[in-house]
Amino acid sequence: MKEIPRGITAPKGFKAGGVHCGIKKNKPDLALIYSDVPGVAYAMFTSNKVKAAPVRVSMKKIRNRCAQAIIVNSGIANACTGERGIKDAQEMSKLAAQELKIREEDVLTASTGHIGELLPMSKIEEGIKQAKSLLSSKGGRQAAEAIVTTDTFAKEISVETDISGRGKNKVKIGGIAKGAGMISPNLATMLCFITTDACISEDALEEATRSAVNKSFNQISIDADMSTNDTVFIIANGQAGNKRIKTWHKKKKLRVKDENFDYFCRALDFICLSLAKMLVRDGEGATKLIEVKVEGAPFSKDARRIARAVASSSLVKTAIAGASPNWGRVMAALGGAHTRIEPEKVDIYFNDLLTVKNGVGIDSIRPQLREILKQDEIKIIIHLNQGNYQTTFWGCDLTEKYVKINKRYV
Amino acid sequence: MKEIPRGITAPKGFKAGGVHCGIKKNKPDLALIYSDVPGVAYAMFTSNKVKAAPVRVSMKKIRNRCAQAIIVNSGIANACTGERGIKDAQEMSKLAAQELKIREEDVLTASTGHIGELLPMSKIEEGIKQAKSLLSSKGGRQAAEAIVTTDTFAKEISVETDISGRGKNKVKIGGIAKGAGMISPNLATMLCFITTDACISEDALEEATRSAVNKSFNQISIDADMSTNDTVFIIANGQAGNKRIKTWHKKKKLRVKDENFDYFCRALDFICLSLAKMLVRDGEGATKLIEVKVEGAPFSKDARRIARAVASSSLVKTAIAGASPNWGRVMAALGGAHTRIEPEKVDIYFNDLLTVKNGVGIDSIRPQLREILKQDEIKIIIHLNQGNYQTTFWGCDLTEKYVKINKRYV
Repeated sequence: MKEIPRGITAPKGFKAGGVHCGIKKNKPDLALIYSDVPGVAYAMFTSNKVKAAPVRVSMKKIRNRCAQAIIVNSGIANACTGERGIKDAQEMSKLAAQELKIREEDVLTASTGHIGELLPMSKIEEGIKQAKSLLSSKGGRQAAEAIVTTDTFAKEISVETDISGRGKNKVKIGGIAKGAGMISPNLATMLCFITTDACISEDALEEATRSAVNKSFNQISIDADMSTNDTVFIIANGQAGNKRIKTWHKKKKLRVKDENFDYFCRALDFICLSLAKMLVRDGEGATKLIEVKVEGAPFSKDARRIARAVASSSLVKTAIAGASPNWGRVMAALGGAHTRIEPEKVDIYFNDLLTVKNGVGIDSIRPQLREILKQDEIKIIIHLNQGNYQTTFWGCDLTEKYVKINKRYV
Repeated sequence: MKEIPRGITAPKGFKAGGVHCGIKKNKPDLALIYSDVPGVAYAMFTSNKVKAAPVRVSMKKIRNRCAQAIIVNSGIANACTGERGIKDAQEMSKLAAQELKIREEDVLTASTGHIGELLPMSKIEEGIKQAKSLLSSKGGRQAAEAIVTTDTFAKEISVETDISGRGKNKVKIGGIAKGAGMISPNLATMLCFITTDACISEDALEEATRSAVNKSFNQISIDADMSTNDTVFIIANGQAGNKRIKTWHKKKKLRVKDENFDYFCRALDFICLSLAKMLVRDGEGATKLIEVKVEGAPFSKDARRIARAVASSSLVKTAIAGASPNWGRVMAALGGAHTRIEPEKVDIYFNDLLTVKNGVGIDSIRPQLREILKQDEIKIIIHLNQGNYQTTFWGCDLTEKYVKINKRYV
């Protein structure tokens, strides 16, 4: 597996374009992603009960597991907009389908931005025409730039992997994402669009995507607020010409795991985790990436709860923002995570520095700890010493700038 | 029921004193509360798995449901301090017992402040002697001042209530509390000490206290971080001479509710709720009190989850800090609260202003909403229109000052 350029337009047969249609001031706000042929598709959506109109519309469209294009705007979320919002979201994908001359049900749609505002449909109609005319196999970056809101940089990545491991059957995967605020697991205020030229079965694409998302986007938190618009789309158009990837295949009448599936998963995991880390690193006001690794948990659930609680604690996040060697807040956060762990067995490391041994802090290390906390990537490793489960969760620090950004947003 | 002065020393037979013993710089940091006679007592503690030494020591002491004094320090939490911490906490109550010439098991102890530091025991020994010499029936305020950490004001309240409703049987209840940061339900980084001269049974005191705490301290959040030291103590010394309050009593061989119990509960609820609201109003960096009332929930659990989610959302809190009319964040927060509600039925009021009707925002009210959000007390009323359960939860806004305070704390 190696990283390659061109993001979502790296895989064969994908084109993209991004334009400014007038929702935001002077910034790109509409992206179109297109595959030359319809592909196998899968989608994951916010688990928020309040789902934006484009989420509800796309949930229906994805039922046939087929898609050829994605139309997405930023600046307005089209959430809490009632019947009119649903019609607008439908209209948006219809307009894109007409322009592209493809089936309406094969155009997925997504929005991100302010809740409660209606989309300016005539601007969007004009924008779709323009975006179509700009479609290009070098347009991945444009699309990545058109989907951001308060992000400070566009997020894209692409890889090529030889799924057979024997120099044949090369497939490419590309992804773009936006995040910044309202980021929390299950999913985040997050849009993520992934393209691949792999030939893959519906089931295999679903399993690979679910697994990759659970290990990445569902393991990050910026502010523990869950959005109404979170969406992951993946389209696999089969243009790589590889032997179709399945989860299982038959070998001498036996049902065996498809090795190629593992190769594909590894590449997709890398794409999702890379994008997820970019999201936290670019959290609103964030200056530091925090990685919390929990080991030795009695149950997988305990590991996840503790990792999330520590990475989401306002007091841990502000302490790290201020490089304040306050390990006690990590102890307080893990104790409050609703698990049955015994705190007397807990060891905590910051990077390689043993800070808490058997639940008791080593006070002499505060000066060293202060130095570690000045770095822009902090690893907190929590050994529970109470079992065999582990997990990793990513978050960011909490700064005055986060508050400033979110006080003024509207 | 009427408010009266003198806080925890308002009830008959209680004395208190507060001194500066040298844990903090130039600020009172040690309080002693004393009843002339041993009383019926009850305690509630943090549900954090990481419990400070004084919590573990007091948990044992309260088993006999009897107490005569409380010794408490601020500045150091005596948490994550291992065996040495346990010994220090035991020593602290032993020293107070010796000084007061009462039984060691009747002295409860509590601490608040930094995690991971050891108590300066010789300073505390000296402080206890000094506090004992200052004990006075006007010392409630001193005690309230000696238990604060980052609080900006001392919190105390006291009432007198006629539990018979017929001008006899007057009892008094007084309470002090400290909060400020690491405040979240079940309980908060919060200490609360309540005194009453009521004569009351053990069971009735337990039931009244649990009920009052669940409706107040467990319904507030400042930063959703749960502390290692949260403690509520209540001592009822029976000096009012009222007929002993029970939950039930016998009347013509029937088991009937004791009316006096209801009067007592009403007064205790008032004490706890008043203190709880003072805590959120004085949250670190807070400028506004936020009251979230959820009505019409299908289950009590749903009402509680939604109220807590909305009041704890960083995005709701920052929007209110900035008087930004972003009602969409309330919708996003309630949708993310892991309930089964239908968002299309939700109406939301800010104070009396209808802002969301059937899940859709009324856009024209933004200017009015902005004015409402400039007030220093914001009521968000969420009508789910899906059942009969309701609840109220209190929180505060999130400001740059919260971040600033917590970046530097150590």
